[in-house]
Amino acid sequence: MRETDAGSKQTNAVRKRADEGMGFLLQYENVAWYEDGAVRILDRRVYPMEIRYVTCFHYREVAQAIADMVTQSAGPYTAAAMGMALAAYEVRDRGEAETRAFLQEASYALSHARPTTAARMEEITDRALSLSEDCLKRGIHGKELAEELFTYAFRRIDDNYRKYEIVGEYLAGRIVPGGTIMTQCFGETIIGTLLNACRKNNNPIRVICAETRPYFQGSRLTASVVCDMGFDATVITDNMAGCTMKTKQVDLLTSAADVITMDGHVVNKVGTFQLALLADYYKIPYYVTGSPNPAHPTADSVVIEERNPELALRALDVKVTKDGVKGYYPAFDITPPELVTGVVTRKGILAPGELGRFYE
Amino acid sequence: MRETDAGSKQTNAVRKRADEGMGFLLQYENVAWYEDGAVRILDRRVYPMEIRYVTCFHYREVAQAIADMVTQSAGPYTAAAMGMALAAYEVRDRGEAETRAFLQEASYALSHARPTTAARMEEITDRALSLSEDCLKRGIHGKELAEELFTYAFRRIDDNYRKYEIVGEYLAGRIVPGGTIMTQCFGETIIGTLLNACRKNNNPIRVICAETRPYFQGSRLTASVVCDMGFDATVITDNMAGCTMKTKQVDLLTSAADVITMDGHVVNKVGTFQLALLADYYKIPYYVTGSPNPAHPTADSVVIEERNPELALRALDVKVTKDGVKGYYPAFDITPPELVTGVVTRKGILAPGELGRFYE
Repeated sequence: MRETDAGSKQTNAVRKRADEGMGFLLQYENVAWYEDGAVRILDRRVYPMEIRYVTCFHYREVAQAIADMVTQSAGPYTAAAMGMALAAYEVRDRGEAETRAFLQEASYALSHARPTTAARMEEITDRALSLSEDCLKRGIHGKELAEELFTYAFRRIDDNYRKYEIVGEYLAGRIVPGGTIMTQCFGETIIGTLLNACRKNNNPIRVICAETRPYFQGSRLTASVVCDMGFDATVITDNMAGCTMKTKQVDLLTSAADVITMDGHVVNKVGTFQLALLADYYKIPYYVTGSPNPAHPTADSVVIEERNPELALRALDVKVTKDGVKGYYPAFDITPPELVTGVVTRKGILAPGELGRFYE
Repeated sequence: MRETDAGSKQTNAVRKRADEGMGFLLQYENVAWYEDGAVRILDRRVYPMEIRYVTCFHYREVAQAIADMVTQSAGPYTAAAMGMALAAYEVRDRGEAETRAFLQEASYALSHARPTTAARMEEITDRALSLSEDCLKRGIHGKELAEELFTYAFRRIDDNYRKYEIVGEYLAGRIVPGGTIMTQCFGETIIGTLLNACRKNNNPIRVICAETRPYFQGSRLTASVVCDMGFDATVITDNMAGCTMKTKQVDLLTSAADVITMDGHVVNKVGTFQLALLADYYKIPYYVTGSPNPAHPTADSVVIEERNPELALRALDVKVTKDGVKGYYPAFDITPPELVTGVVTRKGILAPGELGRFYE
């Protein structure tokens, strides 16, 4: 793994989508990008203070970068797909059996880099595996196989953005003109498509971003995108959410989700639950965006990742506590269905109790 | 104003109190101390990463240091009292009328350095004014007057600690053996007296400290004191409070208060309200410590201080957002009486609806 500050090749496809108004700053090729035997990942741990990349020459380094939270939000999904292309490149000179076994290992390692999202990650790496199986049968291997997997990875991001356009529109439809919304962490795809929809509606919404400790994704990533897209972005620290909902008259709370269980529980970045409880107290609707996950009928099957407790003692890599003080770092929490107003899916807005309808 | 790293003279009184078990690290003479025409204030904005002092040669610098949050929790009260001694020193060569006028100006400036606590601060500086009036009548002036005011300032801290010993004992009585409590920000006096009482009761409680952004008083100050006093201290970020109450089986939430209104509203460091709401959700009792303030029959008369919004965009003086992103920084919030289990006063634990009894 190597950290660089080099720029990346812009592809025509990216340029085209940027022209369509989806070109907020954390663009596809800045998230995680396979090219010439390497995956280059924008280091979101330091953005926007620094524009720095982590370059991976082995899929295991991509898995490690995901585990280390070099990239977040939709980034790990992209990184995992690009990592599969890299894995194919790594075995470009090997035979078919060895290639197949190597890609299977890569699929497991990349999808399980972080436990909570393993099921969703596996969907992506499994699809890459099927694709490579097809390719191998058709005699495509080596660098050519890597390029096929890269194309899949790129198309997947693009498809995902297109899929979320309608989700952004549904959510935008719930925001009053000039309304104020609150969010936390960084729901990259939905923030982009939501603001795009608001722009089309001529609705100059204001976005209050809870900073989202310990990584500050709200202040660093969400607020950057909101600001880049020309909307009003205000950052608060996480402990200010309660009084801010009242004093700033927040109209709607929204978040993405790492997992939405079939029975309507929302597993998302730690802090979501308490925001939802506060919204409920003030009778502010809370809309989560995404799709229910059939791999998780209830929250019982979701593993809540605990990260290195030391990270709770640090801010921007500076330890703020005395030696001897312990930390605790649950990375996700679970919001029960009774605190969720609606699940905004590409098939419309569903009540948390009727998510089965999504698959009918 | 000058920043120094010099040590300070230990007084016998401080040593004696330290021997009594109250000697946790942020001791009296480390908080704010008048000596030889200067007030030296421990810079709690950087503690424990750095032990640094701000030295003030004019009372206006003390007021500025309070406004700048060089010292926090009980620190501003001590600093204001010590600032009155400094003011007397500043006019050591002037006549009685000029001294009187100067001290009145100092009393106002010091007590109004931060708006939310002005009423409580004024009690302290008003007492210093009465004392100086008595002294002037008895022919005490100049440096001697400054020494009298210093003695008052010192005795006041000591009296305050003694007054809170019983409050700590009442609160300790509500914690089950080996229980886990959660708190945020830094309730300096009560944290010391509570842990002292737990030590006497042989109750090895565990303390979970929410870090309390943007200044990290929970992780830097409270966790340091808890750790120094030999108890288990665990730090979480503010967005982890909700899920931590459940996963770590928190038994009790407690906080100090900047103002407790006569009708049972708690005005305290921003974030207290959402912790109280979370505790209510999990049926965890929330006890606030302090005395109801007759200057505030309701919360209507309390001015909620808004601090520089830029501070919400920063961590440890590093700006984490892009230019163009706004901040918002309400410094306090208001917890309604229905979320307060009890007000722990030196006269016992009162329900938030019966605070009038405190003054009967």
